[in-house]
Amino acid sequence: MRKVDLNYGSGGRQMHEFIKKSIVSKLANGVLERLDDAAILENPKTSRMAMTSDSFVVSPLFFDGGDIGKICIAGTANDLATSGAQVHAMSLSFIIEEGMDLDELDRIIDSIASSAKEANIKIVTGDTKVVEKGKGDGLFINTAAVGFIPEGINLSTYNAKEGDIVMVTGPIGNHEVAMMKARKMIPFDVEIKSDVAPLNLKVKALVESNFAQDIKVVKDPTRGGLASALHEIAEHSKIDIIIQEDSLPVDQEVKAVCELAGLDPLYLANEGKYVIVGSECIATLVKEVFGTSASVIGKVQARKGGLPSVAIETRFGALRRVGPLETVQLPRIC
Amino acid sequence: MRKVDLNYGSGGRQMHEFIKKSIVSKLANGVLERLDDAAILENPKTSRMAMTSDSFVVSPLFFDGGDIGKICIAGTANDLATSGAQVHAMSLSFIIEEGMDLDELDRIIDSIASSAKEANIKIVTGDTKVVEKGKGDGLFINTAAVGFIPEGINLSTYNAKEGDIVMVTGPIGNHEVAMMKARKMIPFDVEIKSDVAPLNLKVKALVESNFAQDIKVVKDPTRGGLASALHEIAEHSKIDIIIQEDSLPVDQEVKAVCELAGLDPLYLANEGKYVIVGSECIATLVKEVFGTSASVIGKVQARKGGLPSVAIETRFGALRRVGPLETVQLPRIC
Repeated sequence: MRKVDLNYGSGGRQMHEFIKKSIVSKLANGVLERLDDAAILENPKTSRMAMTSDSFVVSPLFFDGGDIGKICIAGTANDLATSGAQVHAMSLSFIIEEGMDLDELDRIIDSIASSAKEANIKIVTGDTKVVEKGKGDGLFINTAAVGFIPEGINLSTYNAKEGDIVMVTGPIGNHEVAMMKARKMIPFDVEIKSDVAPLNLKVKALVESNFAQDIKVVKDPTRGGLASALHEIAEHSKIDIIIQEDSLPVDQEVKAVCELAGLDPLYLANEGKYVIVGSECIATLVKEVFGTSASVIGKVQARKGGLPSVAIETRFGALRRVGPLETVQLPRIC
Repeated sequence: MRKVDLNYGSGGRQMHEFIKKSIVSKLANGVLERLDDAAILENPKTSRMAMTSDSFVVSPLFFDGGDIGKICIAGTANDLATSGAQVHAMSLSFIIEEGMDLDELDRIIDSIASSAKEANIKIVTGDTKVVEKGKGDGLFINTAAVGFIPEGINLSTYNAKEGDIVMVTGPIGNHEVAMMKARKMIPFDVEIKSDVAPLNLKVKALVESNFAQDIKVVKDPTRGGLASALHEIAEHSKIDIIIQEDSLPVDQEVKAVCELAGLDPLYLANEGKYVIVGSECIATLVKEVFGTSASVIGKVQARKGGLPSVAIETRFGALRRVGPLETVQLPRIC
């Protein structure tokens, strides 16, 4: 087993060789390999710019359906795309624990490279630090990205209006259950994979469609799950949201784990799903772009009380209030 | 002592309250406080854009002359300014160890806020993760920044030419010696402070001057020190660099520590200095902008051998080759 050495973060020759050989060679795109402190991007477009940043501390680093590398690309692309922007430039920084297995690091960088290719993303700058054994946990990744928002597109969690429909682009909860499985927290065998996936090109299809003006909110329900994402929309847009219990797409395996472990899929994290809010006419478009498991799950109402309200209508017609996540979630799932 | 709790990274209410109260309130600028996943910047300028990213794992978090917060602003502003760009938008992400003292975190965020004000920087997006006790080390910070490069400005470590002069903007080695002092590695009392400082507005003065076209390279000699920065310039520009030993500005206290500890100030890290390469006419300008301790330290020559060469001419006229940093440096100084 080859190991990351403290010298790899020292600023000297070994660091430069390591970075060139293990990282840059796999991500080369004409900008990154110059290794200037600031990456220079020629001729950016002239519209509004979006920027996002995320740190990834997922543990374990590998799990069914993905790894920290795939998550860092998907998470960054998906966050930026909530504004309607594609990634014009992305940064990638590593904090590595001394002694990390270099073969694992190679696999993660391969995964970053292939996910970046899938999502049509250029990583243009980065940074590498190494901390002493026991002062980190294998690998932490930080990313940032900027992009330009097409003219006339205005997506925001502040934009939901009374009468809008609320959709989710596929079954919820798979990422968090896959992480529970990776941590051996599920005492029976279950076929389940994380849903981690870059969705930015699907958002591109939405904002380039004839219905672009009818889409109000694109929001990814990651940490805190669908419930927390809906709460953020309700709070920012000063409206209420009513969800139909029967309409929530949840895979059988996720349902089974939730029932046995006493979990609510509404609070489970996702890494490849969006909540989309807009006029009724967007339903067909969203299903065309995201597939048939994309579902209308509820609607936006004028706010009734003083506080933002998200409620679920049970199959018996009763309304149950759904709060944002209050308790500790499984830590380090992204 | 108030402590950071795992809940502060959970995506739920406590996290949102913590972020709003402890971070956003101090950094508010009309964009950050919207807390959208992607920050939207209206009307970016239309020239070339620069982007940079850095992780900060400095230990200890506080030291004479600064702290991790001041370093993260200065390091980001200074890196981006090596392209001639000012920071148009910056991201700020935290990886916090469970149990970190909240009062310390407050002090660091205060320091970030005041340094950002000094450097005229807007932090527009960010992220917070918390890892279990023993899986991090207090606080790691990651930043990214983008900015636009003024028309006609072309600064790069690839641009040094035969006949150019090489300057350093002040005495070298202070940051690393201050870190050694903070770690109680110096067995006697010494009055020394880190030089950490944002220099971006000084670069603005350079690129807005009449001599802007005569400045070729602006490079910050951080990890790896002056020697490694000069090597990077020599390698990228395919030239050699000769430094005059007597011309190197080194404070008496740094000299004393170097002599006693067997260190070479050429390899010590700096956090508030630049190497500047350009035509002879820039010397007066650089001294005006950076102060009288800015010094011409050497010159650029056509490359003689196959390999990039940096050499120091001693006071007796002998040439000593100076390699890039080969050995492990004091880890976690930035």
